Amino acid sequence: MKKILLLGAGLSASTLIRYLLENAQENDWILRVGDFTEEPVKKKLNGHARGESLQFDVHNAIQLDQEVKESDLVISLLPAKLHYLVAQSCIRNKKSMVTASYVSKEIQKMDKDAKANGVLLMNEVGVDPGIDHMSAMQVINRIKGDGDKLISFESATGGLVAPSYDNNPWRYKFTWAPRNVVLAGQGGARFYHNGKFKYIPYHKLFERTETIEIPGYGQFEVYANRDSLQYREAYGLSDLMTMFRGTIRRPGFCEAWNLLVQLGATDDSYVMDDSENMTYRVFTNSFLAYNIVDPVESKIARYLGISEDSPLMKKLEWLGLFDDTKKIGIHGLTPAQCLQHILEQKWQLDPGDKDMIVMEHQFDYLHIGSHRKRFSTMVVIGEDQVHTAMSITVGLPVAITAKLILQGKIGLKGVQIPVLSEVYDPVMKELGNYGIKFEERDFKLS
Amino acid sequence: MKKILLLGAGLSASTLIRYLLENAQENDWILRVGDFTEEPVKKKLNGHARGESLQFDVHNAIQLDQEVKESDLVISLLPAKLHYLVAQSCIRNKKSMVTASYVSKEIQKMDKDAKANGVLLMNEVGVDPGIDHMSAMQVINRIKGDGDKLISFESATGGLVAPSYDNNPWRYKFTWAPRNVVLAGQGGARFYHNGKFKYIPYHKLFERTETIEIPGYGQFEVYANRDSLQYREAYGLSDLMTMFRGTIRRPGFCEAWNLLVQLGATDDSYVMDDSENMTYRVFTNSFLAYNIVDPVESKIARYLGISEDSPLMKKLEWLGLFDDTKKIGIHGLTPAQCLQHILEQKWQLDPGDKDMIVMEHQFDYLHIGSHRKRFSTMVVIGEDQVHTAMSITVGLPVAITAKLILQGKIGLKGVQIPVLSEVYDPVMKELGNYGIKFEERDFKLS
Repeated sequence: MKKILLLGAGLSASTLIRYLLENAQENDWILRVGDFTEEPVKKKLNGHARGESLQFDVHNAIQLDQEVKESDLVISLLPAKLHYLVAQSCIRNKKSMVTASYVSKEIQKMDKDAKANGVLLMNEVGVDPGIDHMSAMQVINRIKGDGDKLISFESATGGLVAPSYDNNPWRYKFTWAPRNVVLAGQGGARFYHNGKFKYIPYHKLFERTETIEIPGYGQFEVYANRDSLQYREAYGLSDLMTMFRGTIRRPGFCEAWNLLVQLGATDDSYVMDDSENMTYRVFTNSFLAYNIVDPVESKIARYLGISEDSPLMKKLEWLGLFDDTKKIGIHGLTPAQCLQHILEQKWQLDPGDKDMIVMEHQFDYLHIGSHRKRFSTMVVIGEDQVHTAMSITVGLPVAITAKLILQGKIGLKGVQIPVLSEVYDPVMKELGNYGIKFEERDFKLS
Repeated sequence: MKKILLLGAGLSASTLIRYLLENAQENDWILRVGDFTEEPVKKKLNGHARGESLQFDVHNAIQLDQEVKESDLVISLLPAKLHYLVAQSCIRNKKSMVTASYVSKEIQKMDKDAKANGVLLMNEVGVDPGIDHMSAMQVINRIKGDGDKLISFESATGGLVAPSYDNNPWRYKFTWAPRNVVLAGQGGARFYHNGKFKYIPYHKLFERTETIEIPGYGQFEVYANRDSLQYREAYGLSDLMTMFRGTIRRPGFCEAWNLLVQLGATDDSYVMDDSENMTYRVFTNSFLAYNIVDPVESKIARYLGISEDSPLMKKLEWLGLFDDTKKIGIHGLTPAQCLQHILEQKWQLDPGDKDMIVMEHQFDYLHIGSHRKRFSTMVVIGEDQVHTAMSITVGLPVAITAKLILQGKIGLKGVQIPVLSEVYDPVMKELGNYGIKFEERDFKLS
């Protein structure tokens, strides 16, 4: 019997737990799930004979070591900044770990220690990062295998509301941790474009979008995502001329979101004065110069260079940003936290709404002298509000990777991301059984 | 005999050292000056009988404790983030410390420990912060003493080139640490305006300027500086409706500087790819979208929304930002470091140039039913490129404060800034002997 320790049972854990429980009997697993509050975990386990819940605090080092020691494999879905604590315990106790998060600097430094202790720290096996790496590597290896030369790789992913439920002016609802959505992009973005290093600072990120069209789903817009440069090497593509990773939204979202960025409303670096008594209108006004004559609406339109009766203003108004009756009501919030509070009233999924994950890769390559382009596209619609597209596409690759490790089918050690075929081939194959598949289009450019 | 330990002997130390040596005989002081390289210190001490130099490394805890232990008072002109190391040693060795820097979070936490050990940690006694606090508090106390009610306080300071030498298109030269100039404002700014909390994010800071006029010196512009809110309480003005601190530049500077901010060229958060081989033009182009048709000049003008033949473009061109022959030539630089490198070629003081410190306070107050406004203005021109206005106005208040502490005339303990009359009255009085004086204008508003 093998024991899997899952730490963190938030939004994206549902499908992961379902998969592991469904496969527990056959593989003789016990799934032990710890979270800060135990009740929601119990609900997710639903009395399954092979499921165990516990109240768990990652900062309790004794409990952490005890639990890790008694397990055969650890999966961490805790907030990304806490993974390193789990990883340290995994190294001490010689257990492997799986996460869906970006490799942090702290984790990267553990590579040597992990290898010395025979431990695998497998990261970035969710959807983005995760399925993006794995699906792209499959296509890249096919292109290479055909003797063709890849010259450009661009990839974008977005978590959105499914088309039938896409019914607000922003064409966006929260299908993922709202805090992460509000803070997205704050480090700016770096990438290569035709051999040139390119950088976009945060305050320009949502202006520099590109449009893509996905057959059957219409148009989307893409803004640049974090640091694409590091993946040139990770993918074994150091001579690649264009390497770009992006985030997908529906058209118009970025232009409107940029207004909030320009205002300073996404700032998370300081606590606002008297946030508890601030109305939404006072919040908005705090970013505008004092002026007793003009209303907030006129000031913001002038400040942001938009027309007072533009669709952009309508989007701001729809959020309630000019409402002088509703109060933030919570003490000690940063602007980003106040904004999140306001957005959470408006961007919640309605009962019955389903979410959608959209991913598109674009590969430019040379094939016997001609320049060709290949699109590879995935769209996943959620089952319901428990097994969302986000929960499915994050949870399944994590779960399948965990299974492969427990079955001894992945022999890697150290800090890894899923860019080797021994990982991505079996994971992508099994994801196909769950309907997570890519459609390809390929045509000649010149 | 008393021993003064001065740590850090950079640009602003010259006048401080001169003052302490000139007063050493009369007060029976020895001045011991430590810096990472000893040679420049020797030059500054010029063989004075009461001066001693040493090679000093603040990260050498044994040396630090040894030196602090043998001194009677410590002055730190080290980079601001290192003061806390000196302060820790001062507390261990029960010695007081003086700095010209903002109270850091680390220093603020030492208040209790400092008091328990009978130690004074006196900060913010340079020019800004420093003379601004002291001169403002004098006026505020006079206004209060007259039974009048202060309703608004605005204050601004700038380090500039003196009018006769103000001869480049930016009307600016480096008279202070270039790195601090490049990074200035990155935390945004917070202040009160007519009872409303106001916040400006970094990417809007240089757009939200106000113009002031100083008699005899012409027009200047002011942008908001850091967090003004905390000084409401420190000044004993919790009910004040407007509290604003700003930085002074010559007109046109901020609009042009904002272009570099918008571009992302002041970012200090990541290292640029291949910075050693980058020409200035490639540096500029790295912030612009790839496009093989348009030259960098057209792209940047369109991106920043300015005309290609505007004075703003001329300012960028004058810096050399479109030069494709000059290379950065240094590996591993951030954008801010690359920009600093470029600016240092153009914004250096020419031989014979003098610098200037400009400070202006504006007080609105109620006097027997009428609304009045008082301006209080200081202009200091440097003697030469050793005793610059910056060195004079930072060094003298630090030196005078140190003297008062050694003479037992300041009895304060704990973490302090100079907002009590036992400090600012004698310091301001003596500064007057050195020509550091404020001119006042006062008139009825309504």
